[in-house]
Amino acid sequence: MTRDDALALDAADALAPLRAQFEIPDGLIYLDGNSLGVLPRATAARVQQVVTAEWGQGLIGSWNAAGWMQLPQRVGDKIARLVGAGAGEVVAADSTSVNLYKVLSAALRMQRAEAPQRRVIISERSNFPTDLYIAESLAREFGCTLRLVNAPADIPAALGADTAVLMLTQVNYRTGHLHDMASLSAAAHAAGALALWDLAHSAGAVEVQLVADGADFAVGCGYKFLNGGPGAPAFAWVRPRLVSRFEQPLSGWIGHAAPFEFTPGYRPAAGITRYLCGTPSVIGLAALECGVDTVLAAEALGGMAALRAKSLALTRLFMQLVETRLAGQGFSLASPRDDARRGSQVCLARDKGAYAIVQALIARGVVGDFRAGDARDGLPDILRFGVTPLYTRFVDVWDAVEQLRLVMASAEWQQPRFHQRSAVT
Amino acid sequence: MTRDDALALDAADALAPLRAQFEIPDGLIYLDGNSLGVLPRATAARVQQVVTAEWGQGLIGSWNAAGWMQLPQRVGDKIARLVGAGAGEVVAADSTSVNLYKVLSAALRMQRAEAPQRRVIISERSNFPTDLYIAESLAREFGCTLRLVNAPADIPAALGADTAVLMLTQVNYRTGHLHDMASLSAAAHAAGALALWDLAHSAGAVEVQLVADGADFAVGCGYKFLNGGPGAPAFAWVRPRLVSRFEQPLSGWIGHAAPFEFTPGYRPAAGITRYLCGTPSVIGLAALECGVDTVLAAEALGGMAALRAKSLALTRLFMQLVETRLAGQGFSLASPRDDARRGSQVCLARDKGAYAIVQALIARGVVGDFRAGDARDGLPDILRFGVTPLYTRFVDVWDAVEQLRLVMASAEWQQPRFHQRSAVT
Repeated sequence: MTRDDALALDAADALAPLRAQFEIPDGLIYLDGNSLGVLPRATAARVQQVVTAEWGQGLIGSWNAAGWMQLPQRVGDKIARLVGAGAGEVVAADSTSVNLYKVLSAALRMQRAEAPQRRVIISERSNFPTDLYIAESLAREFGCTLRLVNAPADIPAALGADTAVLMLTQVNYRTGHLHDMASLSAAAHAAGALALWDLAHSAGAVEVQLVADGADFAVGCGYKFLNGGPGAPAFAWVRPRLVSRFEQPLSGWIGHAAPFEFTPGYRPAAGITRYLCGTPSVIGLAALECGVDTVLAAEALGGMAALRAKSLALTRLFMQLVETRLAGQGFSLASPRDDARRGSQVCLARDKGAYAIVQALIARGVVGDFRAGDARDGLPDILRFGVTPLYTRFVDVWDAVEQLRLVMASAEWQQPRFHQRSAVT
Repeated sequence: MTRDDALALDAADALAPLRAQFEIPDGLIYLDGNSLGVLPRATAARVQQVVTAEWGQGLIGSWNAAGWMQLPQRVGDKIARLVGAGAGEVVAADSTSVNLYKVLSAALRMQRAEAPQRRVIISERSNFPTDLYIAESLAREFGCTLRLVNAPADIPAALGADTAVLMLTQVNYRTGHLHDMASLSAAAHAAGALALWDLAHSAGAVEVQLVADGADFAVGCGYKFLNGGPGAPAFAWVRPRLVSRFEQPLSGWIGHAAPFEFTPGYRPAAGITRYLCGTPSVIGLAALECGVDTVLAAEALGGMAALRAKSLALTRLFMQLVETRLAGQGFSLASPRDDARRGSQVCLARDKGAYAIVQALIARGVVGDFRAGDARDGLPDILRFGVTPLYTRFVDVWDAVEQLRLVMASAEWQQPRFHQRSAVT
């Protein structure tokens, strides 16, 4: 495999034109779209339009005239197409953490009413911390227990007569492990539990089939593979047959059946609209919509299936190049080798130096990130490289591994400047 | 009082130059800044900078390099200067409804631990509905009761040995009544209750003294008098001696003591930072900061005291002109005549036609809004006119009343087109 071979793969790639949708800094190889997606070209003008025309000129009238009031549902409908959900089933609003609080509350409330002996939430110790923190808070409030398993293989055996909810992030942020949503949801249901999925690292990156794969509740992030911008609104989905059966506790006015009647008693809206709370974040939703549109642009080229196939080809190439060109440099693969179990990232473990190596790579214009290990679940420190099939090229993967080879060959990562930790990693 | 007299008041107004901070559509008289503040001139460029430079070029590095991570506290510190709070005591994040959920939860948790017999939340029936909806939800979860009084005068007598929290919006959105924060907080404390204040219609409009006036918890809105844009982030404040004693339930990662350690157990940050939840909404916070800066620009000209004095002069003029130039037209004053009890708005009640009259006025370029009455608390339908001393001129008030006079004199409000209700009012 040569660099020219990588260029040939790009030349043959039917999805290659999608990259033109983005503003990518010259010379930068950005493998951190699973932390913050890059800027779509359409976003700046659209945000400007919202600010200067819709807000500046239209003012309060834009709640009607510019459709601001329907933004959570309009953007939600677009996201639904990417995650195997139907129109009217998703809303875009608030943060992933806040949405997780809503859906996990509703799930626990449902179990308290119908199966009060079910008082355990099952999750992974390596799940993204905010998911665990929210679950910890709700477990305390509902008199439940949060039980963490160390490895995906331990999940089915952990499900039982006391399980209220199985709560997983479909693609683990640290290991890149892609859970089998269909079989784990079925296992949860067989045990009498509900299945709640966080799609933070899967929406827009892998084929998600919420309805077909039996999920009950889902939330996801707007600023990773959906390219919605820093702190973009997140989204929530609830299986239609469950959605109107229980209220969620963040019963703000925008989730009311008739918010503009300004009546004192809460009456939840039908369907997913009851998962809204406060006034929609209009500028953030407009930027998110531009981001979601960049993924929907793939629909004419094979959609999520085509994006997924390219993502797998990119990560396979990454692994192959690490094995052939970085042999003996102390890296081992920490993400699944099996295509069916690997999300859109490659994680490399190294006994020491992972943080500094990532910094040295960034200094060479290759942006990945570092995630600290955790002795409790046996996870090592990792270098994490996310690929975004909308804009990552095969030659980017080739060049990234080559830069990593140079960082190791020159030992430049041992320079003290690369060992200074910043506040945010 | 002639139009020239109004122009003379503007000419003599030391705050008049502050209007140049805003983009106000030509010819529009905007008296709805208590619903959505107008666009500051600085906002479009700042938002563009965040989108194209900080996000587009800086990408993930901007969490550190552009200070994104500290935005909730940085903007919070600026808001603190407007509401009588100290640096490090306010965070800007989420919506008002979500923040209210956090602080009311914390207040109820505090009482459950320390005075479990206190199980009543006292509020006003005419409080903004989202406040009541959130309180209703939390009352159910905590086994408490939400008890609503019909008139401000009834509040002190409603406080007693069973009161957990007195929850009020400092300026009532419908009546414009400005509560006496100091005396009502003292009455709540004398009864052993906590005092929670929603500043949605007061932050940036009246002099708020959270610390001096004895509030325990406060939330507020970013898109009204703070000019932060549609659906801007809101804010939360907790009295320093209470803030670290209890957790709030939305325990997301950004409120963690060390979010970037990615550890599975929740450990709340010290102080107000524990009231953060998910990833900061960067674009929204940048726009909000521009809006808050427009209010802080008044500091050199007398600050909130000067803004408040002008606001009162504007509403006094409005009332005087209605009485002299609209006598016999069926309007009665629904907002307090007493300066000390009136927020930054004038409300006119009318037996019928209030909605259509507002629409006819909007067609003439004068934007106020309509709020429906409620027979249960004896409130009539109202026409609501907010004044924003940063940009409302005396001549705007004169012209608005003149246009209202013409609407009535021509009976044009009786045209069917002004009676069609839109989805959002």
